[in-house]
Amino acid sequence: MASFGPIDIDPASPAYGTFTSTPKPGWAGARFHDVLGQFGVPIAVDTDVNGAALGEWLKGAGQGCTTLAYTTVGTGIGTGVVRMGKPLMGFSHYESGHIRPPRDHAADPFEGSCPYHGDCLEGLAAGPAIIARWGQSLSELGSPSDKIELIADYIAHLAANLVLLHMPDRLIFGGGVMKAPGLLQAVRRLTEVKLGGYVRAPQLDPGLEQFIVAPALGDHAGITGAIELGRMAAGQ
Amino acid sequence: MASFGPIDIDPASPAYGTFTSTPKPGWAGARFHDVLGQFGVPIAVDTDVNGAALGEWLKGAGQGCTTLAYTTVGTGIGTGVVRMGKPLMGFSHYESGHIRPPRDHAADPFEGSCPYHGDCLEGLAAGPAIIARWGQSLSELGSPSDKIELIADYIAHLAANLVLLHMPDRLIFGGGVMKAPGLLQAVRRLTEVKLGGYVRAPQLDPGLEQFIVAPALGDHAGITGAIELGRMAAGQ
Repeated sequence: MASFGPIDIDPASPAYGTFTSTPKPGWAGARFHDVLGQFGVPIAVDTDVNGAALGEWLKGAGQGCTTLAYTTVGTGIGTGVVRMGKPLMGFSHYESGHIRPPRDHAADPFEGSCPYHGDCLEGLAAGPAIIARWGQSLSELGSPSDKIELIADYIAHLAANLVLLHMPDRLIFGGGVMKAPGLLQAVRRLTEVKLGGYVRAPQLDPGLEQFIVAPALGDHAGITGAIELGRMAAGQ
Repeated sequence: MASFGPIDIDPASPAYGTFTSTPKPGWAGARFHDVLGQFGVPIAVDTDVNGAALGEWLKGAGQGCTTLAYTTVGTGIGTGVVRMGKPLMGFSHYESGHIRPPRDHAADPFEGSCPYHGDCLEGLAAGPAIIARWGQSLSELGSPSDKIELIADYIAHLAANLVLLHMPDRLIFGGGVMKAPGLLQAVRRLTEVKLGGYVRAPQLDPGLEQFIVAPALGDHAGITGAIELGRMAAGQ
């Protein structure tokens, strides 16, 4: 399973596979093992973004990377980091969408839509925040350059933070919001500006066209990773 | 060696042990192996903060942690993350000090002292930034509560980001700046506020007194880790 979260993804935990806290009705406390256990096969549970990161690392735009970060910008924002073929975690999966970026309140007076943090990245740049601010998605609005620039600035802040705290060989950005024309290009440009030339490495090509990319597997990244998680659980 | 950086710490790199770019005269391009090679023993090179993280994990305040983050706030700001006894890295060591925090320019008009980014964490909250802003260290100033609060807010932003992107079992904060009376306590309080109750786990105790701590080995954390790096290099 490569699932939405928050969910316990620690195989050593008694609650492995259990949704912890979620506003989705009926899901809090539900456990994949309770339903899938009847099949009598090994069960692996990780997050959707860890699954997508693993899928892209194995068969997509992350092939050949030692460290790969996959971020989705859609109904929420989340990042999975795969290192040497394994998703990284600490006591839980990462929650990159809840980082608070620097912001210019004059340029963007929107207060943010995250029920926990207000103006964290998810509260400012995920799909629901864009709809709450402008009534339509970036694509529906025709991807006007000023709005693309604003959203790209927030996403570029996340990209820079991922570099500074994980130093991945490549950043993949997928999810519905990223389909807006021009957004990925703006994220590349603004990430390079934010890094300010401090981190020098062959991975960071001028213009970041090789470093920041779209998923190669499109919407199949997650399921590809989930299959691999199953293979790993089965010891294959 | 647990050394200052930036330095190549990838054992698979031809430049392993070489300083990449540093304003310190004479150090750029210098390589530990050129000097230590004459002793004919295995050489391990990592960053000072990765060494300190390893030392605290082994013998100090990080004992028992699966994932541990050690941050120094001194002449610079940097973080080492140890997971299951090994320092984490990507294509290079992490550079947490160069994250840009949200800020209130009215409350803190200081433009920041980082030559690359201006108002990144290091440019706002490291020792030289404090001296540049107020002429003295926090301790010399008598640790006035408004100044402690301002610097703690920046450091708490780093603490929250470390939680969101590494989910460590514990955060250790060392370095000269952290010796200012009241600073660690303010960092705990403001980190809890910033996280906003979103991440729920036994590791995050109410008040964060167990979660955010000072180094138990004091100034011996780094050398303790360096000895362990040597042991690991020698296969012991």
